[in-house]
Amino acid sequence: MAVNLPPPDPKSLHPVPGVELGIAMAGVKKPNRKDLLVVRLAPGAEVAGVFTRNRFCAAPVTLAKEHLKGSVRALVVNTGNANAGTGKDGIVRALAVCASLAKSLDCKTQQVLPFSTGVIMEPLPATRVSAGLPAAVADLREDNWSSAAEAIMTTDTVPKACSMQVELSCGTATVTGIAKGAGMIRPDMATMLGFIATDAKIPRKSLQSIVKKVADRSFNCVTVDGDTSTNDSFILISTGAGVAPKKEKDLKLLNNAILDVAIRLAQAIIRDGEGATKFVTVAVERGRSESECRRIAYAIAHSPLVKTAFFASDPNLGRILAAIGYAGIKDLDTSKVDLYIDAVRVARAGGRDPGYKDEQGAQAMKNPEFTVRAVLNRGKAAAALWTCDLSFDYVKINAEYRT
Amino acid sequence: MAVNLPPPDPKSLHPVPGVELGIAMAGVKKPNRKDLLVVRLAPGAEVAGVFTRNRFCAAPVTLAKEHLKGSVRALVVNTGNANAGTGKDGIVRALAVCASLAKSLDCKTQQVLPFSTGVIMEPLPATRVSAGLPAAVADLREDNWSSAAEAIMTTDTVPKACSMQVELSCGTATVTGIAKGAGMIRPDMATMLGFIATDAKIPRKSLQSIVKKVADRSFNCVTVDGDTSTNDSFILISTGAGVAPKKEKDLKLLNNAILDVAIRLAQAIIRDGEGATKFVTVAVERGRSESECRRIAYAIAHSPLVKTAFFASDPNLGRILAAIGYAGIKDLDTSKVDLYIDAVRVARAGGRDPGYKDEQGAQAMKNPEFTVRAVLNRGKAAAALWTCDLSFDYVKINAEYRT
Repeated sequence: MAVNLPPPDPKSLHPVPGVELGIAMAGVKKPNRKDLLVVRLAPGAEVAGVFTRNRFCAAPVTLAKEHLKGSVRALVVNTGNANAGTGKDGIVRALAVCASLAKSLDCKTQQVLPFSTGVIMEPLPATRVSAGLPAAVADLREDNWSSAAEAIMTTDTVPKACSMQVELSCGTATVTGIAKGAGMIRPDMATMLGFIATDAKIPRKSLQSIVKKVADRSFNCVTVDGDTSTNDSFILISTGAGVAPKKEKDLKLLNNAILDVAIRLAQAIIRDGEGATKFVTVAVERGRSESECRRIAYAIAHSPLVKTAFFASDPNLGRILAAIGYAGIKDLDTSKVDLYIDAVRVARAGGRDPGYKDEQGAQAMKNPEFTVRAVLNRGKAAAALWTCDLSFDYVKINAEYRT
Repeated sequence: MAVNLPPPDPKSLHPVPGVELGIAMAGVKKPNRKDLLVVRLAPGAEVAGVFTRNRFCAAPVTLAKEHLKGSVRALVVNTGNANAGTGKDGIVRALAVCASLAKSLDCKTQQVLPFSTGVIMEPLPATRVSAGLPAAVADLREDNWSSAAEAIMTTDTVPKACSMQVELSCGTATVTGIAKGAGMIRPDMATMLGFIATDAKIPRKSLQSIVKKVADRSFNCVTVDGDTSTNDSFILISTGAGVAPKKEKDLKLLNNAILDVAIRLAQAIIRDGEGATKFVTVAVERGRSESECRRIAYAIAHSPLVKTAFFASDPNLGRILAAIGYAGIKDLDTSKVDLYIDAVRVARAGGRDPGYKDEQGAQAMKNPEFTVRAVLNRGKAAAALWTCDLSFDYVKINAEYRT
């Protein structure tokens, strides 16, 4: 049961000229499930991406990074199998899928970016994936974003898609994106899988810099369980079929639109986090550096004790102080730390606020969304993360995922 | 339901001459519960300790560190309240308890080491604790270790105590210890609370070095949930009422006995980890350094996905490869990594072992105890940790702990 996350209205998802999407049921893990997505890009489209820093990165990640060096004509995404922890054989199988798609789209194998998500350390059924490609290719259309969002789901309960149009001085630009992910979420570069496309023309060099900056402020600010996936990939596509913004102001508007879409997708992943019943913003303020603020925010957001307290709406908030204390900031003066749940000041100067009553904390935590705010009072930096609680259903989902 | 952890037989716990223990029901958090322990040491006893590195360390931790500088005559331990995250007022309250006990034992306030465990960020009911002291003092006896182990329990389901006698050339030495802890367990110096005493005479300087080494190989090798407590304390007492070993060989035998007791207590904490149904040894071998092996072992042992797979006896072991991959070893060559569950080789050269069948992994994981062994094949160092699974009951216990 996702937190305040209605499924996207298909009509709200603007097609991006130059991007066609087609889906199919390839039976990768189970039959009768949309599990295959093909994306065809118009010639001249520029593509940039950021990928997991997990050393056990999946075979498709290795290939996608390589293939990004040239011009990209298509993406292929399967669910049901991550093709990670599969050694050299995994590369062979991923390449076979790229080759099949290249043949059917009349491009080179190296112009196809492969993506996989699902169970780790099982051989990709490449023959079944390839056999599903003709149906996906036959389904290619520009107004297919909604189905595409469904086709990349694994333990997600709600498809994740977001779209907006932004008025620039040179005309209207469209930004539309999809993402998937619910568990094994602590992106180190990006999330499980996120794809955003715009028709606005952005040179490749700028695109690479934008994708990094956007990832850092969206997908790199979420955590469900602290487990960095082997398959994290976030891809930004500029088809160039639309406007070609040049003015500083237009570029800024466009970047903001891309960031907005990315943040909404990243937050959607948390709202649909495995077993999530709460959507929690963890903000750490007045630290010495952004990195120390992030470190503390992650310690809070990863603590199983804090997360179970969120689940219970139990203001057992000393657990948050404990997490701040073990975050590894060696010279942290705890006697300066204040802690808030939304507007309620829980701790002041490192100890319980004398005016604070448990009922106030419990009341704030009963909301499906709230903010934990730690104020360090030792500098001017700040950072925020989005996370969810740890519920019975997280255990249930992950104890039963494969079986 | 602890994993292979019967309660200690009171008769197996050898008294340590020079150490008397008394317990009481002080009603710290709830009535009719053993929640107060007083330990009186004979004059001349030497005491050393290691403590949490959590910056939000509890008031009693701050005082115990300070009071350890002089000669120690008594310890006082309460459960039900951690007296952490309580600022200056916490110090005042902990000192008040020390003063009460000092008065009744006719020693100085600074000769009492205070310890607290329980809920964080609530004021210690020092008056109730002090009011309970006379009953605890009246109960002081040398053969009271079993009751002492019960008196320091919080979410523990089984009291933790261990004792052994070792024959030295100069006579018999006794080593007896107790510990508590089940959640918020990822000791950074020691565990929640551990106390070991020997009657053998050990000079203070050696004692401090022994306590550090022992902690590193026992309490610092366990993790339940990755949450480093605000109250971790591990105390080693040498009463000097018994033998005075001087020979290298005797000192080694005595050190080994202390380490043995500490390891059994540390393992008992994991066997009784909150909600634990499995006791898992995580061994990382053939790494470049012990620290990189520990880092990988912790990544595996902290991954909620790995821990839920342990709970389900589901050999979804790609999750272990993912954890190895994100442990932060930047130059790790994953194509060299082998992975075993007990004797079953699951992965070879970074990918699934072609001969491995899921049934073999499932069979091994059905045991209540097994070893996960990752072989990095890049050096000669190794490290091992003990951990448990993440079950429904972990969530239940921590969502309901206070309420």
